[in-house]
Amino acid sequence: MDLGEFELIRRFFWRPSRSPAASDEGVLLGIGDDAALLRVPAGADLAATVDTIVEGRHFPAGSDARSIGHRALAVNLSDLAAMGATPAWATLALTLPEADAAWLERFAAGLFGLADAYDVALVGGDTTRGPLTITLQLLGHVPAGAALRRGGARAGDLLAVTGTLGDAGAGLAFGRFEYPAPRVEFGLAARGVAAAAMDLSDGLSGDAAKFAEANQLAAHIEVERLPISRALRDVVPASQSRDWALGAGDDYELLVAVAPQRLGELQGAADRLGLALTTIGELRPGRGAFFSLDGRNFAPKGSGFDHFR
Amino acid sequence: MDLGEFELIRRFFWRPSRSPAASDEGVLLGIGDDAALLRVPAGADLAATVDTIVEGRHFPAGSDARSIGHRALAVNLSDLAAMGATPAWATLALTLPEADAAWLERFAAGLFGLADAYDVALVGGDTTRGPLTITLQLLGHVPAGAALRRGGARAGDLLAVTGTLGDAGAGLAFGRFEYPAPRVEFGLAARGVAAAAMDLSDGLSGDAAKFAEANQLAAHIEVERLPISRALRDVVPASQSRDWALGAGDDYELLVAVAPQRLGELQGAADRLGLALTTIGELRPGRGAFFSLDGRNFAPKGSGFDHFR
Repeated sequence: MDLGEFELIRRFFWRPSRSPAASDEGVLLGIGDDAALLRVPAGADLAATVDTIVEGRHFPAGSDARSIGHRALAVNLSDLAAMGATPAWATLALTLPEADAAWLERFAAGLFGLADAYDVALVGGDTTRGPLTITLQLLGHVPAGAALRRGGARAGDLLAVTGTLGDAGAGLAFGRFEYPAPRVEFGLAARGVAAAAMDLSDGLSGDAAKFAEANQLAAHIEVERLPISRALRDVVPASQSRDWALGAGDDYELLVAVAPQRLGELQGAADRLGLALTTIGELRPGRGAFFSLDGRNFAPKGSGFDHFR
Repeated sequence: MDLGEFELIRRFFWRPSRSPAASDEGVLLGIGDDAALLRVPAGADLAATVDTIVEGRHFPAGSDARSIGHRALAVNLSDLAAMGATPAWATLALTLPEADAAWLERFAAGLFGLADAYDVALVGGDTTRGPLTITLQLLGHVPAGAALRRGGARAGDLLAVTGTLGDAGAGLAFGRFEYPAPRVEFGLAARGVAAAAMDLSDGLSGDAAKFAEANQLAAHIEVERLPISRALRDVVPASQSRDWALGAGDDYELLVAVAPQRLGELQGAADRLGLALTTIGELRPGRGAFFSLDGRNFAPKGSGFDHFR
């Protein structure tokens, strides 16, 4: 195939005529100039995040391109969800071994399917030849001063997680691994209610330690309270599902800290979204992450996913 | 080496205590949360660009890591220069075959050396293991409505380029290939004076055609006027230096269109920066890019660099 770079970009990623979406109003200049020009709403701060996914490390070689396109955006949406930010604009850096039209068509379908659901406009990109690597940067906005941060919680705040944990890592609900559902709406609803938030991409045991550190507190988590899906409970022993829930990562749920008197409000928000919210422990004075199972200390296996360990 | 991802990021890329720079005022939250929080100056638009460089394609395998770090930022600075935008914040996606401390130290020195020169703050990043690939996204700002666009020129506008062309492609001035100097200050000075601008990353012959297309005009370029450095003229025949100036790319100079009556003003701005600005042709009614040499039609070799051709 002799598909030039510019033709390739034009064919799959320029969508000047797509249906107007809220975010399009902020796009003064999209793909096609040296840089995109964007207008952040007055009185809002800008939120920026970036994630890279590499074939063979973040998804198996030969994965469906549609799933890869979805996933590249979903992992970033999850980061903005954890900030309580409204996603708006994305840039895409796509390194491909070859310009394969069928692959690109499915990739674009996965990416734009999710982008359209969240009114995200693709405003820039770069394509290069090389081993399959996708880097997506996502920009969003949040009313000035209102962002949910990783720090900001106090001793006595409860720890809660959205959804269920361990499914993706188990590889059981493979649809969920391939098509993670970012908790954007919950992040928006949690703004001004939760005290702090982060997304669980690397596994609860490692992420809880980071969350505790960001708050200069100790996270105490009761492992028997972790939300495990029925699908997972039905097929593996409890000890196995716990290991996956604590260590496997890729769940893209949110971990939040909330003052006890605000829990009802947060629970109400989750209920309205049809999303489970489960209290799993609390923050106390001290440092580090501590786990207990039925009242006894519990040591999770490993400490979360680390690409360089 | 068993250097964990988080330790790696902290060691080389977190710089919470660096000397205060103008852009730091806009960083509400840098590396370390789920996303960065940034404040765009009131009344300014946001400019966003992204570029990927891959070992073996954009720089030779085994290149000095300091040059790679510089280059990753420079190519993006050049894009913002072409918009007349003030660079402010960068995110970095770094895919590495291994976490090599000596390599990272030199890479960070090259990146931050240039970042500090332009008050760019690194506000986010992702590191993954894989073949050496660097994607940098750069954000900047420009007073609302004042950005230099690729389109916007009129028939009769003159075409001019900064600096000299062909050195990088020639591989002669190898220092220039490794350490391109983005024309950020000139881009800022050209705002409100030039009618349109783009950066010359892929070679003048292909880029001039894109520039003409963006303006729905024809670019007429007199090849004998192209600025060729003395270093290049001294060592290769004129025909060879012309080929490199037209086709080799990687010069990262700016191509601008300017109304004849504003040329003096633009030339004055270049003079104040100690930068050459050379008129090479003009825009006329029509479409496409046309080249002449001493009054006769001239056909450049190739049509600019294309990663997928």
